[in-house]
Amino acid sequence: MSDKPIGVFDSGLGGLTVVRELFGTMPGENIVYLGDSARVPYGIKSLETVRKFAMEDAKFLLQFDPKVLVVACNTASAAAIDTLTKISPVPVVDVIRPSSQAAIDATDRPIGVIATEATVRSGAYQTAVAKLDPSREILAVACPLLVPIVEEGRPTDDPIVTHVLCDYLRDLQRMRPGALILGCTHYPLLEKAIGKLMGPETQLISSGAAAAVEVKKIVAQSGTANGDTKTGTLCCYTTDNPERFAELGQRFGGRKISSVKHVGTDELENLQQNT
Amino acid sequence: MSDKPIGVFDSGLGGLTVVRELFGTMPGENIVYLGDSARVPYGIKSLETVRKFAMEDAKFLLQFDPKVLVVACNTASAAAIDTLTKISPVPVVDVIRPSSQAAIDATDRPIGVIATEATVRSGAYQTAVAKLDPSREILAVACPLLVPIVEEGRPTDDPIVTHVLCDYLRDLQRMRPGALILGCTHYPLLEKAIGKLMGPETQLISSGAAAAVEVKKIVAQSGTANGDTKTGTLCCYTTDNPERFAELGQRFGGRKISSVKHVGTDELENLQQNT
Repeated sequence: MSDKPIGVFDSGLGGLTVVRELFGTMPGENIVYLGDSARVPYGIKSLETVRKFAMEDAKFLLQFDPKVLVVACNTASAAAIDTLTKISPVPVVDVIRPSSQAAIDATDRPIGVIATEATVRSGAYQTAVAKLDPSREILAVACPLLVPIVEEGRPTDDPIVTHVLCDYLRDLQRMRPGALILGCTHYPLLEKAIGKLMGPETQLISSGAAAAVEVKKIVAQSGTANGDTKTGTLCCYTTDNPERFAELGQRFGGRKISSVKHVGTDELENLQQNT
Repeated sequence: MSDKPIGVFDSGLGGLTVVRELFGTMPGENIVYLGDSARVPYGIKSLETVRKFAMEDAKFLLQFDPKVLVVACNTASAAAIDTLTKISPVPVVDVIRPSSQAAIDATDRPIGVIATEATVRSGAYQTAVAKLDPSREILAVACPLLVPIVEEGRPTDDPIVTHVLCDYLRDLQRMRPGALILGCTHYPLLEKAIGKLMGPETQLISSGAAAAVEVKKIVAQSGTANGDTKTGTLCCYTTDNPERFAELGQRFGGRKISSVKHVGTDELENLQQNT
């Protein structure tokens, strides 16, 4: 038993969908979350820049002596998982490998992925799936407008949302994949609309849900679970405005966010320089 | 006469549309440009964060001993123009006041503004127009999807572009403004589509063009023009990947970008801390 927190970071609010999954499977765990909202999004930036930011985010969370570190951001996972695993004294769970495994377990048919431009460009999903099943057909499609659409708060039945989704999903609809990985933490908020367009033959895999299962396994194996009879706490940090984070974050996390503190990007950069 | 550069900064590539206007009116001037692509966009962030980034960007450019400092980003202008004017030893030109003046000069009818969420939230255009003409009706509409749409490179006649523009411009079409300020450096790339929807009675005001006229006036008044017989140089810095900046920047700047160097966000943060 350990009340040490689970450290979770993301480029902004999106990772709160992963926090929701973590609390869903492990309601007793305490979570420290860092959302780098001042430098969001990561998905349109170069992998080198994302790697640098991810290292800073991880080093910030390691100060809280977490039992596990969760890279909730798909782009950060794609850019930095190897580097993070090397520097971290605790297990690091990304969102790409677990969801690739979940997709392979879910179907024998081809696998689809929708993700940010940087994640698709990195080839991380393609590599992860090929490692698990070299013969599996996979198609990854970059969907740059989905993050801003979710952040704008458009209802999922808004005609613009449907129009944009139809545009991005066209090739995937033709491919008729057995599973479609929602390879960005923002996309679960569009799950209903995506499911409608892909049809019942395609199972949607949320990368956060798959990561939560992996975290639970690690915590159980190491005997550090905090027990499910307690109610875990959520303590958030953001590099942008805390009030705004709390206000918008509720939609992603599915519950009221009461504790949000500010941490400056200069503090993060200093952490990186001094270690 | 002075071959000192004009310093221009923006959150990313968008400010290159302002550079294009500057070269259009002053082909002999040398320009040093900073695009903060690692932390782009500014328009979805809090004004405090944008102010901090803008200060760092300005301090970086002041190292080049510029004759004028141009805040090409509307959001940075909205958040930081007063602070920047205070710290800068050289004149600072923003994009909000000049385009507000240009709109008022262009029409007696109401004025429309389209801009990022942060710019609209700041009320900077509303304040600037009210200062110049307190009785003038003004309507500012936030258009969060337009920056990612431009960055994605969709053609302006793409049905999604039309659909999104119709959605954002609905209230402005009803208002029938005499002038519509394109209050974000990305929007000139959608000028044709916006013009078609607004009709010939609405004059489109590019904030970059108005700023360029202002810069020319300042340079002429101070007798520091570099002469139009020379061909000015463009030296770019970016906080993200230089190759990517050069490749994508061409679309915004309208010409090949041959000199792009990297500057880290840590260097910018250090500048801010040490001065």
